Amino acid sequence: MKKWLAFFFLIAFQLGTVNASETVPSSPNGIDFPSDYKNWELVSSSHRIDNNTLRVITGNDIAIKSARSKQTNPWPDGTILAKIVWKQVTLPSWEKAIVPGEFVQVEFMVKDSKKYTQTGGWGFARWKGEGLQPYGEDASFVFECFGCHTPVKDNDYIFTHPSILP
Amino acid sequence: MKKWLAFFFLIAFQLGTVNASETVPSSPNGIDFPSDYKNWELVSSSHRIDNNTLRVITGNDIAIKSARSKQTNPWPDGTILAKIVWKQVTLPSWEKAIVPGEFVQVEFMVKDSKKYTQTGGWGFARWKGEGLQPYGEDASFVFECFGCHTPVKDNDYIFTHPSILP
Repeated sequence: MKKWLAFFFLIAFQLGTVNASETVPSSPNGIDFPSDYKNWELVSSSHRIDNNTLRVITGNDIAIKSARSKQTNPWPDGTILAKIVWKQVTLPSWEKAIVPGEFVQVEFMVKDSKKYTQTGGWGFARWKGEGLQPYGEDASFVFECFGCHTPVKDNDYIFTHPSILP
Repeated sequence: MKKWLAFFFLIAFQLGTVNASETVPSSPNGIDFPSDYKNWELVSSSHRIDNNTLRVITGNDIAIKSARSKQTNPWPDGTILAKIVWKQVTLPSWEKAIVPGEFVQVEFMVKDSKKYTQTGGWGFARWKGEGLQPYGEDASFVFECFGCHTPVKDNDYIFTHPSILP
């Protein structure tokens, strides 16, 4: 009987785990949520003082290999970059430190030079809030993203420069 | 002959690889440079406006497991936290964004509650500049580190709170 109970809880746990990643809806342009973004390695960080947010940029294995070998213009097909965004707060224990507070969103740029020809070879996606609500009414939201990234066309449409990590 | 040449270059390459990681001297208190810190996952980030630096905090596997499960007071033995520090610069393509510039240093806190009883269970180490020069004339430098961290004793001597990563 104990064995059956253990088996039941194991199955219930597994189902729960699967459901947790399956409940994040895809972006309106068909990009699935890259739920492993939090396991990715560091590319860079930023503090935007126009909207009071802190950001960390991570990348999948292909992105990190490119970043570490300084081959990022262009980034290779298969690259995915994640930009994780939080509202800024002051650290109570050191008031001259600005640190991440409320989670705002996580944004992704997926490089596929054949698939995303209309937007510089990049697919865009964004999930907002801790509930990870996909951004955009329909697939056309990507032109808003692309518009903002067009000024950095000469850097393969990417604002981020990988940080120095000796 | 070609085979011998290939073998020679393979050995030379391997020696070069080994030397690259062995040339970083240990900290005066005996802590070896954790050269894989750049492969570690994200804990948090900060912007210190008193000394104009951006920081990203990463952690080894034990640290990340604790951070993700919100079990960080105390952090478990075996935890290593890295704080990577850069001088702040303005991003030319978006002047309201402050981003990492020159590499300043990487600092580590190593949790071993039996070994580091004099400094709250934490071993401290810092390597400065892209040349990764170990900090401290002798092992007593750790009391300088510990002094600054004493105000956050109630948070296991750690300023950082892991960022929200849904």
